[in-house]
Amino acid sequence: PPLRWLDPPDGPAIELLDQTRLPATEAVLTCRDVDSLVEAIRRLAVRGAPMLGVAGAYGVALAACRGDDVAAAAELIAAARPTAVNLGWGAYRALAAYQAEDLSPVRSRPAAALATARQIAEQDAAASAAMAEYGLTLVPAGARILTHCNTGALVSAGEGTAFAIAAAAHRAGRLARLWVDETRPLLQGARLTAYEARRAGLPYSVLADAAAAALMAAGQVDLVLVGADRIAADGSVANKIGTYALAVLAAHHAVPFVVAAPVSTI
Amino acid sequence: PPLRWLDPPDGPAIELLDQTRLPATEAVLTCRDVDSLVEAIRRLAVRGAPMLGVAGAYGVALAACRGDDVAAAAELIAAARPTAVNLGWGAYRALAAYQAEDLSPVRSRPAAALATARQIAEQDAAASAAMAEYGLTLVPAGARILTHCNTGALVSAGEGTAFAIAAAAHRAGRLARLWVDETRPLLQGARLTAYEARRAGLPYSVLADAAAAALMAAGQVDLVLVGADRIAADGSVANKIGTYALAVLAAHHAVPFVVAAPVSTI
Repeated sequence: PPLRWLDPPDGPAIELLDQTRLPATEAVLTCRDVDSLVEAIRRLAVRGAPMLGVAGAYGVALAACRGDDVAAAAELIAAARPTAVNLGWGAYRALAAYQAEDLSPVRSRPAAALATARQIAEQDAAASAAMAEYGLTLVPAGARILTHCNTGALVSAGEGTAFAIAAAAHRAGRLARLWVDETRPLLQGARLTAYEARRAGLPYSVLADAAAAALMAAGQVDLVLVGADRIAADGSVANKIGTYALAVLAAHHAVPFVVAAPVSTI
Repeated sequence: PPLRWLDPPDGPAIELLDQTRLPATEAVLTCRDVDSLVEAIRRLAVRGAPMLGVAGAYGVALAACRGDDVAAAAELIAAARPTAVNLGWGAYRALAAYQAEDLSPVRSRPAAALATARQIAEQDAAASAAMAEYGLTLVPAGARILTHCNTGALVSAGEGTAFAIAAAAHRAGRLARLWVDETRPLLQGARLTAYEARRAGLPYSVLADAAAAALMAAGQVDLVLVGADRIAADGSVANKIGTYALAVLAAHHAVPFVVAAPVSTI
């Protein structure tokens, strides 16, 4: 799994699959304090909106278990990446549980933060399944779906956001091809989405980002499916560089453009 | 220089700067027959519309000097790259000179083919200067110009096509910045245009191809300048993958889009 909580005697710690080394190496990072988690978030060893919500909450739980300043830890985590609203969302939910538990004798404050982190992970898996089910209604038969960046099991406690819809379409026999933008500069598509697609048995092809428009013009794209770093109250979406270009190009070619994200991203 | 003809005793041969190894290494390839030239063209060791016209003509001159089947050589060269119309244009001009010279006692047929190749190179340098002069009239003061792929001195016996205009704008004090698309998958922008821009002293920045749209939306692009592999009679332009995306995005953002090419590209 891309993220795992370790209880004592191995922990408290958070184990992460280092996404910067995929697909060549499946290396596990062990974060034993908030600083190392923040560092892992900053260099994108762990990334993806829903997974960052989970990681943020576990980070606060880690600080709580260690007896660190938990409010300071939540702030540090929330600021680790500028656009990833889920980070602060997860961290502050765990912080709130930690602080509320002060009023109750039932369980320890660290246990409350940890329980919230676990609950966020479970809710994320459920949200992923719900997005897949709802999103599937937007996928036509024989669909050629274009996606950008990485939105699958690596970024979620479930099957992901946009990728979960493509995977559901594959299971339903509706996916003719998943076009995977390589997603420069860090190649999250070529490295991570291709890795997930291969593991899930999806028919997929990786393409240079700049080639997407020509595919659309050739009638080879039926749907563009992406995730989101954050969604503002007015509906504006912040996501990986290149997402805006795809939106303009999809509009020009009358290709439906769908953003899949859990409520925590709003 | 990116291409040089070698007379005996070193030749007959064509020396090429191997563009696949730039910018790290300035390696020279020596092509002593048409097969090795075709191979160099296929793997993009020599590339760029005008330069391919020059290379195609020298290739026919090489076959002529060697006593090979010159018509077969011209056909082989013309077919080396499917979209590069200049290749066949140059090769068949040299072939026509070779065949016409059969009727005259004045000089040898190989010398006629070689003279045509040299003339094409001279005309290309003159066309480059004319494009720069005409193109400069389309560049506003303080221009931020976005370009894709590579169109400078490496692809021409002169200063190039689109790049020549940016260089002229720089000399005229009108270039605030040259935005260089990295141009995946082969990185002709990041490797070659950045190399040319650095040598010419232009202010430039390399960007991921997918970032161009966001720059346009932010009002950071005043003009898009590209070259062309070929231009059809109806004005359709074939060029490096990603050019079409830029055209759609420029139209959406009301940014002028200019294609610079010599007559041989039509």
